[in-house]
Amino acid sequence: MKLLNETISKIVKLDDSMSEETQKRLDNLTKPQGSLGKLEDLAKQIVEITRIKNPKLKNKVIFTMAGDHGVVGNNVSAFPKEVTPQMVHNFLNGGAGINVLARHVGARVVVVDMGVASDFENNPALIIKKVNHGTKDMTKGPAMSKDEAIKSIENGIEVFNGELMNGIDIVGTGDMGIGNTTPSSAIVAMITGRNVEEVTGRGTGIDDKTLVVKIAAIREALKVNKPNPKDGIDVLSKVGGFEIGGLAGVILAAAAHRVPVVIDGFISGAAALIAYTLEPKTKDYMIAAHCSVEQGHKAALSFLGLKPILDLNLRLGEGTGAALGIGIVEAGVKILNEMATFESASVSEKSGK
Amino acid sequence: MKLLNETISKIVKLDDSMSEETQKRLDNLTKPQGSLGKLEDLAKQIVEITRIKNPKLKNKVIFTMAGDHGVVGNNVSAFPKEVTPQMVHNFLNGGAGINVLARHVGARVVVVDMGVASDFENNPALIIKKVNHGTKDMTKGPAMSKDEAIKSIENGIEVFNGELMNGIDIVGTGDMGIGNTTPSSAIVAMITGRNVEEVTGRGTGIDDKTLVVKIAAIREALKVNKPNPKDGIDVLSKVGGFEIGGLAGVILAAAAHRVPVVIDGFISGAAALIAYTLEPKTKDYMIAAHCSVEQGHKAALSFLGLKPILDLNLRLGEGTGAALGIGIVEAGVKILNEMATFESASVSEKSGK
Repeated sequence: MKLLNETISKIVKLDDSMSEETQKRLDNLTKPQGSLGKLEDLAKQIVEITRIKNPKLKNKVIFTMAGDHGVVGNNVSAFPKEVTPQMVHNFLNGGAGINVLARHVGARVVVVDMGVASDFENNPALIIKKVNHGTKDMTKGPAMSKDEAIKSIENGIEVFNGELMNGIDIVGTGDMGIGNTTPSSAIVAMITGRNVEEVTGRGTGIDDKTLVVKIAAIREALKVNKPNPKDGIDVLSKVGGFEIGGLAGVILAAAAHRVPVVIDGFISGAAALIAYTLEPKTKDYMIAAHCSVEQGHKAALSFLGLKPILDLNLRLGEGTGAALGIGIVEAGVKILNEMATFESASVSEKSGK
Repeated sequence: MKLLNETISKIVKLDDSMSEETQKRLDNLTKPQGSLGKLEDLAKQIVEITRIKNPKLKNKVIFTMAGDHGVVGNNVSAFPKEVTPQMVHNFLNGGAGINVLARHVGARVVVVDMGVASDFENNPALIIKKVNHGTKDMTKGPAMSKDEAIKSIENGIEVFNGELMNGIDIVGTGDMGIGNTTPSSAIVAMITGRNVEEVTGRGTGIDDKTLVVKIAAIREALKVNKPNPKDGIDVLSKVGGFEIGGLAGVILAAAAHRVPVVIDGFISGAAALIAYTLEPKTKDYMIAAHCSVEQGHKAALSFLGLKPILDLNLRLGEGTGAALGIGIVEAGVKILNEMATFESASVSEKSGK
């Protein structure tokens, strides 16, 4: 609990002392004021977060965290749980969606075993932070103990802190875990107060019958465990997952180090809710990459007051949306850093200005 | 007219003979089917357009075409018309928004004088295809002669064809021209059949009073000239602009060479409508980059049946939205080319498949 408390204590309110100057600089660039819309907003947010006048997003890091889920025993997923470790291998071999999109935007992928049910052979590219071999079935009792919930968050913090020496200018969150839309829906329902049906979708592509089973399992888990929606650790331990806790840790650590964190899709959104309940100021350090097809994602973003950058009908997770979002954030920062001003380019300003 | 007719005659219906195979390949990649949404759709469209199984978007080219507009004499714009040549210099010096965003996505910018009112000193980086020194005031009569309209389109085709030897795998359209949302609104109103108010916005940021003047000027231009909405050349000559004609030429030439063309914002949308009236099959080669703040843009895209990739509140033009759109299209193509398959990565498929 010490590392978690220390991390939370370092998270400060965003400093808007540079906002006016940044706005002035954006307005002096050779374009009509505000005409680059969201790109300008993102540039401003990055300056506020980093307190750097001309931030450079050289080191872009996506943390893709994997874990397994006891609840899959209830047949809530379209894929067998063997796919979790298989996809971890795919990440390590560079063949997954996140690898392709991270390369595309010049980000590196940090792959973490937060709680996969099986064990991996030694691989220097894989960070082992396994809290346990998968969570327990949350329809029968808590998915994990309170200590495990804290450990999953602290492991996420440790992963972030360990990666700091390699340089981190912006972070993307990513997940892998067969069945993990089920705990995510449970978390989103609890924390946002929405109905379970409203925030439960088809995950990797389940049919109508499985969707009914999935909704029933989530309802049962909430009934059996009665998580306290104000207590992120309680929610995480009762209906969460190890990779979700790890990502909440990454988000908290990023905020503590004033590093912008680009939230991927639905599972990352659930992790963001956990981080938010632990420290609401984390919200200002978050950027929502995209709006997922998974229906609960909108509820999570709306609760956090975040507006997604992209809407591309993605529902893969892994950090794929975060990678594309990072590309757009970097475009905004480059606008601020690289565009000529009216004066430097000898361009006339608006009439009557 | 010969080059225009030759170009149009080369535009063929999209060939869907590779679609089934491409879909199969996408479905065999290590992800739930369809989970990369719009990225997958874009990859399919690029294969259909190029008829290349594994298309590479190495040579990305944005054509930024500039022209002046006689209608600015009616005070329809917030910026003085000197800004058009000043911004051309800014493009050539690499300091404009389009330069920053093109560099970000690895595209080159081809800057063209299609009809700026003033003359430029010799500069090897600037392509001079000046049809005339700005258009005439369209509220008093046609903006240009019919011959000039054809010439502007053919000049655009020549620019594209001339650039082909440097390699073109994907094209973005871009514009610069103080006052050019005014002719664009006139074109969009005529071709889509919408009311002028519905498709007329604030351009670079005009106030309420100027907006009234702008709408009145467009109404007057349509009343005086009575363009035939079925005849793109008639619309272009009466209420168009040289850069708009040039971009219509780029779009036609791209389609003729089976090169995907990413349409930027409102002015590019007007050019796309002109190209569409001349050859409706061009539509299949178009990709809408984003949804502009300029309100007539939605009407243009909806008429063309195009769904924008991005919605970032952009309203700068120059090709800035196209550049970001190209980045997303390339991401989609890389997914198709670079992701591992279930088989190659030894990942289990969906249960019951």
